[in-house]
Parts: sequence; structure tokens; C-alpha cells
Amino acid sequence: MRILLTNDDGINARGLHALLHELNTIAEIYLAAPRTEQSGTGHSITVFDPIKAVEARIPGIKKGWLIGGTPVDCVKLATKRLISEPIDLVVSGINHGSNMGTDVLYSGTVSAATEGVIMGYPAIAISLDTYDDSADFSFAAAFTRRLVTAMLKETMPRNTLFNVNLPLLPPEHIKGIRMTKLGHRNYDNLFEERRDPRGNVYYWLGGGVLNEDQDEDSDVYAVSQGYISITPIHLDLTHYGLIKKFNKLSQEYLNDLMRGE
Amino acid sequence: MRILLTNDDGINARGLHALLHELNTIAEIYLAAPRTEQSGTGHSITVFDPIKAVEARIPGIKKGWLIGGTPVDCVKLATKRLISEPIDLVVSGINHGSNMGTDVLYSGTVSAATEGVIMGYPAIAISLDTYDDSADFSFAAAFTRRLVTAMLKETMPRNTLFNVNLPLLPPEHIKGIRMTKLGHRNYDNLFEERRDPRGNVYYWLGGGVLNEDQDEDSDVYAVSQGYISITPIHLDLTHYGLIKKFNKLSQEYLNDLMRGE
Repeated sequence: MRILLTNDDGINARGLHALLHELNTIAEIYLAAPRTEQSGTGHSITVFDPIKAVEARIPGIKKGWLIGGTPVDCVKLATKRLISEPIDLVVSGINHGSNMGTDVLYSGTVSAATEGVIMGYPAIAISLDTYDDSADFSFAAAFTRRLVTAMLKETMPRNTLFNVNLPLLPPEHIKGIRMTKLGHRNYDNLFEERRDPRGNVYYWLGGGVLNEDQDEDSDVYAVSQGYISITPIHLDLTHYGLIKKFNKLSQEYLNDLMRGE
Repeated sequence: MRILLTNDDGINARGLHALLHELNTIAEIYLAAPRTEQSGTGHSITVFDPIKAVEARIPGIKKGWLIGGTPVDCVKLATKRLISEPIDLVVSGINHGSNMGTDVLYSGTVSAATEGVIMGYPAIAISLDTYDDSADFSFAAAFTRRLVTAMLKETMPRNTLFNVNLPLLPPEHIKGIRMTKLGHRNYDNLFEERRDPRGNVYYWLGGGVLNEDQDEDSDVYAVSQGYISITPIHLDLTHYGLIKKFNKLSQEYLNDLMRGE
């Protein structure tokens, strides 16, 4: 079995190495990780600059590269160009910090898994709900190994990835696994205004998560209650209900809209 | 009426100015556009660097800023910090080049509109299907004005944006408007390998659109046939069907998955 391992915290992240340590006991690991932290890069790709790729010399991998790009660049470049063998799965993480609700759109971790699905592979994204620098990733990594093993026994549905979030709890305190929907995850998005030495304005994005009521079947709620959350994410963004509504509009109305009154 | 206008081609793009020229006849225009081209930045946000914002001195706007960030940064910063008045709509475009099918995940144009929806506003993204430098954006801009006027008369559904793509045809040759689903839009993603003067490898992302069979109700098909495509896009990425399937798994199976065999 061959796994492409990536993340958005970069090659130096502890979550990545914890995952490598577990996954290389069940598969050959192909590593393509960003050289630098790429949090918040979402589904960004590098089109106006070249992408550097340096061979990674890390014990425990079959092959690997440090990529001068985004997590999506890593998956695209690795699967399309760098890796000649067929891979079975893309795993992204373990992210330092949870990726739940609307986070999935901004998250490089989840976007790397999304790109895996677009490229035709099953994919999972794993995140641990903590920003603690000394957090222990070992249970999350071992859980991922078991989940990957279970996933590859089943036929993964096409165009779907699993977004996994774990609470920061000792394993014996984790209450179980819940299959969840994406919850609400809004931020207050405070922009702090500063001035440079010449008096020009600039802003830092700051602010924290807003506490909002959560549905009990959401990822945010499950993790807050001490459960591991697994959210199946699809990529079909079309709002079919609105198409039906639109198709009831008269041809006259549409002609006016197109040509002007 | 107040419209926040943005794009991903940057402040210097002709599509943006064509849209401004039309939309300022029906609304006060607040402009927040990237200083530089941001194609392919997807839903990327700037979290590790400060974001510069310089007041734009462009005729026809109420207020505006050149933003040293991504399209999503533009919408977030403008709506959360720079604009004090309530706005009615976010319009992103007109993009130089279509944004259809899977493109919507990579597109800064569409992601800016998505961010508008996340911030609580109705939003549309507009793209013209051409890379011709001298392309005429005037019909696309006038059509957008009519569409915006029609949209604001209706109650826009929450969490939905309209992704509009126009064919590059003389107005009299455009066949009509179709409400479409997202089609297939895959690229061959050729990565061209080069070497720097020191012999280090780097890659350029290249390659073109793959010709694939398209459903007749897709955006790609509609535009190829000379129609304006409007795709309603929702943000609910949860795959509910898989949750149901998962909930049939036995507790024993889940315990094994969590704690190990």
C-alpha cells in the first residue's frame, strides 16, 4: 500500500512526523510537504511562480519532497509528476488546531485532501483540537492508522473525503467516534490596524472563534463533548433546488434579463 | 444600494473597470481589489503577514482600496473593517477567463463571492470565457447590471452565490440564459521541469483543459453552446448519505476503531 502524506503546517510540524511514524508500519510513505507553514492557504495553487521541490532525507519514508508551494501544489505536483507509482490514499495532517465547520474552506490541510479526491484518490484530513506546542499527537496518529486500515478495506465513495477532528484528551477520556455534519465556525475577524514607520496603514487578521449554538450532530459539538468527529465531505457545490425554481421563470423574463428592457 | 466590488485579476483588470462603469449607475460602489493578480488563490487568506490597504483614487467609486492580499482578504477586510456602511451585495469579476466546474475551488473570483456569502451578503461571481487581451467586457458588464437589479428585487437564499459565465460572442449571437450545474473541468496539469543555474530542479504548472463529455445541464456545456451560464452554488459540503451509512456500524466495530484491536 502506498500513501501520499502531506500537511499545511509544513515539513517541520510534529503532527506530520507523528503520522509518518504510525503510517509507515502499514504502507510505503510518499511525503510531499510544504517547506514552510501554509495555514489559511485554502485551495490556493501556484500559477505565477515556479515551484521548487527538494528531495526529503527523512527516515521512514519511501520517497519525499519539500515543496516550495501550497498543500494543494504538493498533492498536484506529487501525484502528477514526482511519484511514478500508483498511490492508494492521500492523508493530510495531523494539523495543529482543529478544522471544523467553515474552516474547511480556509484550511490548507483539508484542501490538500480535497485535491487528492479531485486527482482521483480516497483522502482524509486529520486535525487535533489544540494549539499547545507540546501537544501529544500519538493517539491521533495511531487512530489515523486504524482508520486508514479500515477505510482501505471498504470501497471509498468517489468525490468524498473524510475530515477528522480529535479532541485534546487522554485516550481513555475520549468518549467515542461520531459521524458529523459541518457545524458553524465563525470568527470575529478583528483586523488590527497599525502604521508603518512612514505612516502607511496596514492590518493584521486576528480575532477568535465566536461561540455559537451548535447542532448536536455537528463536528464542533462532537469535539467539544469529547468525541472524535468524522465528517464526510462531498464536492458537489451545485444548489439543485434553485435550478428547479429558476426553470419556472418565463422566457419573456429571461429575454429581458439578457437583452435589457 | 451599496455594492462591494472585487475581483482576482487585480485593480488593473479591464473586467473590473467595465463592471464598475455599469454598476455605478445603479449603486454606490465600494471597491476592494487586490493590488496584483491573484488567479488561483482559491479561498486563501493572509494570516502570517500584514495586509496593506491603500485608498483607491478611481473615478466612479464611493470609496475604495487597493489591498495587498487575496480576493478573500479583500472581502473580509472591506466588510469587517474598512466599510462602515451596510452593503447589499458582493460582486466579484469580471474575470478574464471562465470559472466553471472544479475551477470554482481554485478561483479567487468565485472564492471572493463565497466569502461574501460567509460574511452574510448575497454574492455573484462573473467570468468571461476568453483570455483574449482585447476582449470586449461591455455586454457582460451590462448583463451583470441587469442581473444584479433582478437579484436584489428577490430575496436571495442564504448561503448561496451565483456563479455566472458568459461566452465570448457578440450579444446578438448569445442564445439565452441557462441555470446550470457545475460540470467537469479537469486539466492535464503538466508540470514542466526546469533547472536553475545551480542545477536545482523547479516546476511550472502548465497544461490545458481536458476535453471531457459534459452533461447537457452543465455550465461547461451551456457556455460551449453559446449560452450564459448561471450556477447556484451552496456551501453545505456535508455528505449526509454517508452519515446514515456510518450510523449503521456496530458499537463494537467503532470501539475497535477507536482503541485498537
